[in-house]
This record gives sequence, C-alpha cells and structure tokens, in this order.
Amino acid sequence: MSKKKIAIAGATGYTGSELVRILHNHPDVDIIAITSESRAGEAFSSIHPQFMGICDMPLIQISELNTTETDLVFLALPHGVSMEFAAQLRKKNVKVVDLSGDFRLSTPEVYAEWYHKKHSYEEGIAEAVFGLPELYSNEIRNASLVANPGCYPTSAILAISPLLQRGLVKHSPVIIDAKSGVTGAGVKPGEVSHFSNVHDNFRAYGLKNHRHTIEIQEQLSKAADSDVIVQFTPHLLPIDRGILSTIYLQPSQKISDEMLHKVFFEAYLSAPFVHICESPPQVKDVRGSNFCNIYSTFDERTGLIVVIAAIDNLVKGAAGQAVQNMNLMLGLHETSGLNHIPLRP
Amino acid sequence: MSKKKIAIAGATGYTGSELVRILHNHPDVDIIAITSESRAGEAFSSIHPQFMGICDMPLIQISELNTTETDLVFLALPHGVSMEFAAQLRKKNVKVVDLSGDFRLSTPEVYAEWYHKKHSYEEGIAEAVFGLPELYSNEIRNASLVANPGCYPTSAILAISPLLQRGLVKHSPVIIDAKSGVTGAGVKPGEVSHFSNVHDNFRAYGLKNHRHTIEIQEQLSKAADSDVIVQFTPHLLPIDRGILSTIYLQPSQKISDEMLHKVFFEAYLSAPFVHICESPPQVKDVRGSNFCNIYSTFDERTGLIVVIAAIDNLVKGAAGQAVQNMNLMLGLHETSGLNHIPLRP
Amino acid sequence: MSKKKIAIAGATGYTGSELVRILHNHPDVDIIAITSESRAGEAFSSIHPQFMGICDMPLIQISELNTTETDLVFLALPHGVSMEFAAQLRKKNVKVVDLSGDFRLSTPEVYAEWYHKKHSYEEGIAEAVFGLPELYSNEIRNASLVANPGCYPTSAILAISPLLQRGLVKHSPVIIDAKSGVTGAGVKPGEVSHFSNVHDNFRAYGLKNHRHTIEIQEQLSKAADSDVIVQFTPHLLPIDRGILSTIYLQPSQKISDEMLHKVFFEAYLSAPFVHICESPPQVKDVRGSNFCNIYSTFDERTGLIVVIAAIDNLVKGAAGQAVQNMNLMLGLHETSGLNHIPLRP
Amino acid sequence: MSKKKIAIAGATGYTGSELVRILHNHPDVDIIAITSESRAGEAFSSIHPQFMGICDMPLIQISELNTTETDLVFLALPHGVSMEFAAQLRKKNVKVVDLSGDFRLSTPEVYAEWYHKKHSYEEGIAEAVFGLPELYSNEIRNASLVANPGCYPTSAILAISPLLQRGLVKHSPVIIDAKSGVTGAGVKPGEVSHFSNVHDNFRAYGLKNHRHTIEIQEQLSKAADSDVIVQFTPHLLPIDRGILSTIYLQPSQKISDEMLHKVFFEAYLSAPFVHICESPPQVKDVRGSNFCNIYSTFDERTGLIVVIAAIDNLVKGAAGQAVQNMNLMLGLHETSGLNHIPLRP
Repeated sequence: MSKKKIAIAGATGYTGSELVRILHNHPDVDIIAITSESRAGEAFSSIHPQFMGICDMPLIQISELNTTETDLVFLALPHGVSMEFAAQLRKKNVKVVDLSGDFRLSTPEVYAEWYHKKHSYEEGIAEAVFGLPELYSNEIRNASLVANPGCYPTSAILAISPLLQRGLVKHSPVIIDAKSGVTGAGVKPGEVSHFSNVHDNFRAYGLKNHRHTIEIQEQLSKAADSDVIVQFTPHLLPIDRGILSTIYLQPSQKISDEMLHKVFFEAYLSAPFVHICESPPQVKDVRGSNFCNIYSTFDERTGLIVVIAAIDNLVKGAAGQAVQNMNLMLGLHETSGLNHIPLRP
Repeated sequence: MSKKKIAIAGATGYTGSELVRILHNHPDVDIIAITSESRAGEAFSSIHPQFMGICDMPLIQISELNTTETDLVFLALPHGVSMEFAAQLRKKNVKVVDLSGDFRLSTPEVYAEWYHKKHSYEEGIAEAVFGLPELYSNEIRNASLVANPGCYPTSAILAISPLLQRGLVKHSPVIIDAKSGVTGAGVKPGEVSHFSNVHDNFRAYGLKNHRHTIEIQEQLSKAADSDVIVQFTPHLLPIDRGILSTIYLQPSQKISDEMLHKVFFEAYLSAPFVHICESPPQVKDVRGSNFCNIYSTFDERTGLIVVIAAIDNLVKGAAGQAVQNMNLMLGLHETSGLNHIPLRP
Repeated sequence: MSKKKIAIAGATGYTGSELVRILHNHPDVDIIAITSESRAGEAFSSIHPQFMGICDMPLIQISELNTTETDLVFLALPHGVSMEFAAQLRKKNVKVVDLSGDFRLSTPEVYAEWYHKKHSYEEGIAEAVFGLPELYSNEIRNASLVANPGCYPTSAILAISPLLQRGLVKHSPVIIDAKSGVTGAGVKPGEVSHFSNVHDNFRAYGLKNHRHTIEIQEQLSKAADSDVIVQFTPHLLPIDRGILSTIYLQPSQKISDEMLHKVFFEAYLSAPFVHICESPPQVKDVRGSNFCNIYSTFDERTGLIVVIAAIDNLVKGAAGQAVQNMNLMLGLHETSGLNHIPLRP
Repeated sequence: MSKKKIAIAGATGYTGSELVRILHNHPDVDIIAITSESRAGEAFSSIHPQFMGICDMPLIQISELNTTETDLVFLALPHGVSMEFAAQLRKKNVKVVDLSGDFRLSTPEVYAEWYHKKHSYEEGIAEAVFGLPELYSNEIRNASLVANPGCYPTSAILAISPLLQRGLVKHSPVIIDAKSGVTGAGVKPGEVSHFSNVHDNFRAYGLKNHRHTIEIQEQLSKAADSDVIVQFTPHLLPIDRGILSTIYLQPSQKISDEMLHKVFFEAYLSAPFVHICESPPQVKDVRGSNFCNIYSTFDERTGLIVVIAAIDNLVKGAAGQAVQNMNLMLGLHETSGLNHIPLRP
C-alpha cells in the first residue's frame, strides 16, 4: 500500500511540532507539507530546533497546498482561525482533523455562548464527529471532518462515561478537579507561562467558565442520555506535559471496587491506549505516549467514588489522538505510528 | 522584658530547621538548646548548611536539657516518639508545642485506629489544645500542651469551618482535593521523594486512609457541632513547599459570592495571618510566610461552592503556626517574629 | 534616631519587589514612596500579590517624589532609563543607589562599546562608586551615587579579587563558567523565560559578548593593578534564583589548599556576608539571603586553581547588596535589615 | 533476516529501563530475557510502571539465561559486579556490551587507582573496545566485548577529539565544566537525589577525583597521540536528563570560527547522531534521543576556543549508544531502532 499524503496546517505551536514528531516516524504516511502563514519560507527546524537534521522541510502558506494530492489535513490552528480553513478544505473534499475547539460543541449557539464568537461554518459543526475513538470509532472511520477533543475533556470523558453509560452514578454534580502542565497554555510567551510564575508554584484558574466545561458536559450528557452537570476546576502544574483529573462521583446504586474495575475493564477491553490501573496513575508514566491510565475506587466511609485519569495533554490530549483519528479515517491500523513508550525518567 | 528561653527537640528534619529559621530572628526569645538523639555533638549547621555562620550551636541530647530554665519546648519529632518526650516534659511542668500527630485527635481510641499504634500518654490527649489560633486562641493562651495541627488540616479547616459554623453548607460530603509540595514527606530520602519520581510528575496518594482525614473531620464536626464526613484526596506536587486545597461544598441555603466574602472576611477580621482573596490564591504568594490565603466562590450553574486555600506547609502548616502558638502561650504578641514576607519569585 | 526616608523608583521588576521585601522589615528606614511610570495609581500589591496586606502602598510617578524629604533613592530601572533619573536626582543632591548597569563601567567610551548606547550623564560615571562593600566600603560610606554591581560580577569579583590582589594567579585567561537562575532575565515574559523553554532544560547564552564581561574585567584589572583578560560564559539554570560561578585560574607561584583557605579567610575576615566554605557551595544554601559562599581548591594533578562562588542573584546580586550599600551610605550598621536566613528547602 | 536475540542483565536501574524503551521498538531484535538478581519473578512493568501493558515480561536470574540462544547481552549493572558477569559470558563466547565503568580504562592498574578496587577480569580489559562509534566504528564492528563510554566522557570526547587529532589545540590544561541531570546518580534514593536537595538548587561535586576524569583523559591522549591533562568539574542540574559540557581550549595555531566549523563538520560527516550547531545547544533539544549537538567558537578577545556539547545522558550517554554499538557488532544498520525524535517540550 502506498503511503498516505498528509499535511499539517499550523507549524509554530506545540500541537504542530508534536504532530510532526509522531507523523515523521509513522510507517504508513508521508508529511507532504507543513504550513505557516507567519513563517512560510523558513525551515520547520528553524522554529523547532529539536528537529534539526530530522525535519528541515520548508514551510509553505496554506494557499500553496496541493489539496488534490493530499489525503488528510491536520489543522493545528487557534480556534476561530481553524473554522475558516476547515471550510475551504471541506469544500475541496479534503479530509480534516481539526485540533482546535471549533467543531467540538453541539450547535453554533452553544459555541457562541462559550467561545464568545459567531461560528462561520455551521455546516462543519453538523458534519463533524467528536474524535474520541474509544467512544466513537465507527463514526470516526466514516468521518471526513473530525473534531479532535480538548485535552481536559479527553481525560475526563474517558474516566466518567463508562459509569454514566451503565447508570451507575448520579448526574449531578460531577466534580472534576483537573491539573495540567503548562504546555496546555500554548507556545506563546505570556504572564501565564513565564517561568517564575509557574515554577515552584501551583494555582487554580478558569473557575466556572473554562470552555472545556461545556465540552465535557455535552459529551457526558450524551453518554448518560440525560443532562449531566459538571463542576470543572482546572489547575496549573509546574510541569511541561500531563493532565491528571481527580473525579468525585456519587453512586446511584450499591457499588464496590471490584465492580468498578470490571466496568472499566470491559468498557476499554478493545481500546489499545487505555490502561486500567490498580493504583493511582502518575502523569510521568504516560509522558510522550498516547496512553490514558485510569484508576477508580469506592470509599465506603464516605459513599463516594473517586476516579483518577492521567494523559499526556499533547499526545492523547492532542496530537496523538489526532493521529489515532487519522488512522481510523484512512483505514490504517488504529495504533499505527503510535508505539511511543512513555519517557520516564 | 527578658527573652523567653526556648528549646527545640528534633533537629534533623525540615520542621526543626524551619523552627530555627523563625526563632533565630524572633525578637522575644532565645534558642537555648537544640536536641538530636542521633547527631548530638555536631553543630546544627553541619546538618543544615544554610545556617553556616548563623546558627552553629552544638546539638545536645534531650536528657541534657535543663528543663527548669526552659520556658517552652517544641517537639519536632516523629509521631510515636513525640508522646514519650511530651510525657516527660509535662511531668516537669514544661510547656510544650508538639508538631507531631500524637495529640491532635480526640481520644486514644481514634488515635489507635488511624495511627495503628496504642497511645502511651493518654493524659496528654486530654490536656492538649488543638493549636489552630484562628479558632482556639483563648484555649491556646491558657494551654501547657498544644497539638500543632497537620499541614493539610490547617488549610482545610481554615477554609471550611466558617461556613460550617454558620450552618451555610451541608455536612456530607465535604470534598477536599489537596495538593502538597514534597517537603511534607520529610527529610529522609526514599522512593517518594526521589527527584526523578517527583520532578515533572504529579499523582494522588493516600486515598481513603490518609491520617489527616480524621483530623480534619473531627475539627469540622466540632465547628459544625454535628458529624461531618470528609472526602480527602492528597496529591504530590513537584515543588518544595506549599499546599493548595480545592474544596467542594453544597450550600444548605441560598448563597452568593458577596455572602461568602462577607462570611470569611468577618470570620478572620482579627486573624493576622489569614488573607481573604478576590482571585484564586497561588502557593508561591505565601512561600516562606505564615499566611493562609483563601478564596471562595459560588457557581450558580452547578449550585456548588468552591473554596481554595493556600499555605506554606512548613510555616503556617508547621513551624510558623507552632511559633504563633508559642507567642500566645507565653503572652507575647501573636505575630511576633513572624513578619516573613513571601519569597517570590 | 529617626528612621531614614527611602524611595524606590521602578516597582514592576524583580529588583523592585525584592527591595520592598527587604526594606519593609528594615528597622532603620521607612519606604516613603515607590514609583512606576506605567502603573502609577495602582497598589504595589496589585502588581506583586505576595505583598497583599503587607505593602498596599499606591505607586506614584517619579515626578511626584518629594526629593527634599528623601534620604536616598534606589533606581530599579532598565539601563539607559536609569541614567536620566540619576541625573535629575543628583542635581537635587539626593543620594542614589543605581541597580542598573549605567554607572558600573569606567568611562563613557567603554559604556558605549558594550551597551551600544551613548551615555547621557557622564558626570555620573565619574562620581559613581562601584558598590561592592567587601572591596570599597570606605568609598561607599562617602558616596552619593553608588553603582550597584551586576549579579554575575558580584560572584566573580568576590571569588577572584583576593587572589589577584595578592599576586597569586596569572592574569590571563581567567575563565568564569557561570550559571544563573531565570530571574536574571527579568520579569517581562519572552521566549527566554517561557516555562517550557527553561524547565528541564539548560543552555549557555551570551558567549563572548555579555555585558558583565567588561564589568568583571575592569574590576579584576583594578584588583590586580594590571590588565586581566576574562573569559565569561553565562548559562541559564531552570531555577528562579541563584548564581553559581565556577572559576579556573592558573597559579603564578606554588600554592596549596591551606594557602587558598587562608587567603580567602583573611580577605573576608570582616565581611559579614561572605562565608568561606570547606566544600563546594550550593545555591539553595544562600537562597533569599545576602550571603556569598566561596570555596577554593588547588588541583595538584592539573596545576589549576578552582574557585566556586554562590549567591542569590536578586539579593547579594541586586537588592540585598543595594541595601548593604545604603546602610553604609547612611551611616547605619552594614548588616541592618539583612538578617534573612536562607530559605531551604 | 531473522531477528537477533538480545538479553539485558540488570533491570532495576535507569539504563535497564532505557534499554528496554529502545529495544522494545527496535525492528531487528527481540528482547528474549531481562534479568534481575533481586527482583527475579516479578514483571518488568512492576518495577517500571511506565511499561504496563507494553513490557510485562517476567524477570529471570542471570543464571537462567540460555546463552546459546543469545546473540548479545547488555550489562546494565554496577561496576565491580559487571566484570564478574562479563567474564562468565565471554567464556561462553557471548557478545557483551557493558554499560558500567569496568572495561573503559586502559589497564588494571589505572582501574585500581581510580575505582579503588582490584579488577577480577584483566583479559576483559585487554579485549574490550571503547564503544564510541564516532571514533572506533571499525573496531566495534569486530568486537565481542564493548565498553560503553561514560555519559560525561561521551560528550567531552566528541567535543574535543577532532581538535586534538588535527593538532589544533594545546594539550594542557583542557578544561571541561560539565553539568548533568540527576538520573546520572542512579535510581536508588539517597541524599544526592532527594527532591528538595536538587530542586531549585545547583552545585558542583566530585572535584578533582571524579572517575570520568581519567576516562576522558585517556581517550583524549589517544586522540592527541600524546599526554593530555584534563580539568573536569561536574555539576548537578535540577533536571532528569541531559548533559551539557562547556569546554575551554587554547589553540596551538591561528584559528577562526569558520575553521572550527569545518573541522567538526568534516570529523562527523558520516556520523548520523552528531549535529554541528550554529548556536549553543540546549539539552532539551536532544532529550530522549541519541543525538550529540556540538557548537564551537573562537573568542578573538581572549584567544580561547569554547566548545559546547549536549547529549541525553541516558541515551547517547548510555542506552542509546549501547544500542548503536550493538547495531555495529551484529551487522545491523548503525541507526536501526534509534530514530527517536527529541521530546520537546
């Protein structure tokens, strides 16, 4: 089988460089183009020096992309920008995996409410499939536009949906206390990512209004087939990569650790990237890999269920999951090119 | 007024060195002795080189301590060991602030259940006052044996008790998702504190059975004057110092951000070390200081209250609070010697 | 004695906040004003939240400063800007400690060569005393304009000058391999201080042309009373604070560890902030304090002397040394207000 | 071609887990056994949880190894222990790559002097080839016992030998100021690797007597074909992985940046893992990969050459280089299985 031809739109950010890290060694695809409106003409490795001698491909503008020879385009662009390019590419019938938040929500109205912006490509929202392969692999296989999930939502939805699907937990309130490494804030320097504001520090942010709240809530409501209310509190960890979500749920029936383990084990029996753990997971045990490690327990003393999930926000939370989606969309093996072993220490 | 004469039992740990950092510059006291059973004869600064030229006092054994000339002894010893020395000192009528967990719980039975050890000084449990000055300053002023609170409990109790005291929140479940720097695990090297196991990593630990759970629960029940059930999940941050507790509560009546702010403001009007914040606190903003910074908000969308509290686990969570207790016990000004400004960056 | 009245010009940077941290608790001075051209009107603590409830003083513009009631002004401003304000203040006969690089070099010509800028206040260069109290305490006592040394120069000059003064080492090449925490790059976010560019990373920068090279070289030449050539390589550590300089020197005569120890011991016999160490110093052992810890050894196998010096770049390398200079200039005790014990862990 | 059968002796350390990370995905080999004397019977992933679901192979004792079916054994054992197993395996004619220091030095006498231990397998010293493929690829291809170089020596020898080979620099003193991440100190917890002793800290160690000094010196003397004297100062960085060596050399003839660049470019023209850089390298740009990035410059002002080299100490400084050696020894492509792209951020 000849290799698939892949383009990446948006080269300067962390999701762009992470896509190249994964796709460059992918056995079934070739990167035929990487685009950047602001840095076109420069070598990819001049922006990301870790690729020196590995990927020195010159960046092009997206208008220069030969779409007829491209099997799939990854959009690694800011939300708001991404929807414009998605519209152009879909009109030319190119398959798209969008890593922004532009196509993750259910309707233009919900998008406008949480992103404070009118959506310019409503057909895209209708067409897009939510790209969480553990829940929607069939839809993804047939999709032409996939909305790659947010990093926090990936960890939270994988950790909670099996319990909601089986009716084992109450729908409100679902409490998600999440902690993320700084790369989630992007490549652009600012107060939030200034070294001395992060190092040896820890804090919560985005209380009550983080955009991932609605993304999680919509997906959990779908899993529960009924409205779910989500309390989501993100925190900023002094690390590069990794999300750990600690989740508090009220059982709706008698439950035990054994039952919990069985539920998760069965739910992810055929999910190659989900590990069911017997002790609380650590973010360093998934660093650089596409795994999601999940632990659950029932506290008899308090009557609550605690679920903890760990992912690498740039891999399973972004570029790795995007490649997993691409594999399904192009008829490749779901795990192809995703055999990265976690880098620890 | 002549200076008070103070001894510190237990020199090798972080609470020991932190007590010396604070007491050495305290205007109203002199450190007359520092003890270490294992390192007696050595200079204090040979164990903690940051004190070179500042405190080179030779360590003595606790048996060498001239108790008749000592106004107060801090016990910076492991639990189980501390109770023995507390008994000896109390028999000689020396005032004691104990920084271990030996005298924090209500009864020998509860102690045995959570510490898996029979208590050898039950009179001490009866005599001891729980040393949280914001709640018990009168009792502390008259106390001869003060149980200095645990680090996690300090942040959690300060953040929750005003709401329970006023009957504003339900008693169950109180969810405390807490994150601590590594110094909480002590000075002794081990897997838990091995650099590459902590750095660029994050994880939960001690689920369902951490000893601070019962300490928090007993104190909150006292504040509520009724049983409170606590779900407590500690996590390990890749930082030296600092605890941030994110707390989820269900209001028992109509509530608003303004009401919450007013409650905390009034509760801590005369508390010199509690700051009521208008945005979520950061651990680095209290680093090295005795402050506890508290933020609270009500989420109308979900109907939950979120309270966040930050302290330095070695200061307000240990040595600083111990000195605050000493100040009250010896009739000194509550803030004396505790004017450390947070070290940031 | 009534307290001295002190102003700080430049509130937004790390040297500004560090000056307030030190001066706020200084027993002999009052901060009467803090200025910021860009943030005038705001509270100091709104820029540096760690001062909430400690220093909420409103910032003023420097033009609003009542210079007749001010005993001394610290200029915590960028170089180039500082010289303008220094000129204004000196014309009004106000004593000044300038923390920028504007008055550290010997002549306007040398300044222009290394700072690529014409100097606008040449009289200031002539008037200024280089504020390294261990070398120039008498000059500083009588000075009205003190050029506070750079952070790297402080560590390097203290580590090398005793050997040059005594003619014990060759003048060329003096190799200084220096490593600094990120706060040396300032408070303003940028690529250099972006968390993920610094964390878990290490690199050299400014090879061959760092401005501190000439500052070190001029001072060492003065100590040697002859031209000294300096090879200076700064590196960026993934820490907030601290400089460690590792220095390689060729002895000009027979030398031993005992001789080295004696030389340093005698050179700094009356220097309250220099510690001569018997093992290589660590930056964490001086963190938050005004100490400079120095270790030296002779390697018989290679014939070279290695000297290692550690300081906190924001304290002995900036604000602490500035206060030490102020103490001398105002006739206060050299150590007044500088009793900070290193914060470790 | 059928896959080669590989065993790894020593599973508990970082070099052991790093070998598995690389070899598990190597296209031309199978790991047939992993040994551990202390943990035999347990799953590899129970010691290194990042391998859960990836490599759960049970550990065996080395005596259980079927040596007749093994093409090559990696010894990831402490020095002193390694020589015993190397002797046993060589007697059975099994090819060995030893990652300890036991076979890196020239004679048993030199070994005894620097390792304070009599060597028990002197024939091994005579037989062993120093496994730096960029210098000795032909010898390695024909070798049966390869001494994998130390981490510091790899960076230093690659950075200096081209200049010595061409007679461009003086032989004494060669100054190597090196900085390493903590994993170099091993997996075993201790004071050196205790989080709070490393984090936000920096220090030199092993002055004048680090064992890598003699390894570097012997190899550089060989490159120069004449005695070279090395001043080597290692430092401990608060990071997991990475070594950066800053090297100071005196040219023995007229030199320029262009000449330096040409020398390094030509020396490593056919070296797939050495990058010649145009700006100082960063350790994060080689993290997790087998690359060595080298930068050199001549400072006309001082007359010195500065060379800076960066590697990942666990990859090019240990396991990656060991696999590179294995590839050569077994007739595989030198780069096979070593296509890891640096993990940044």
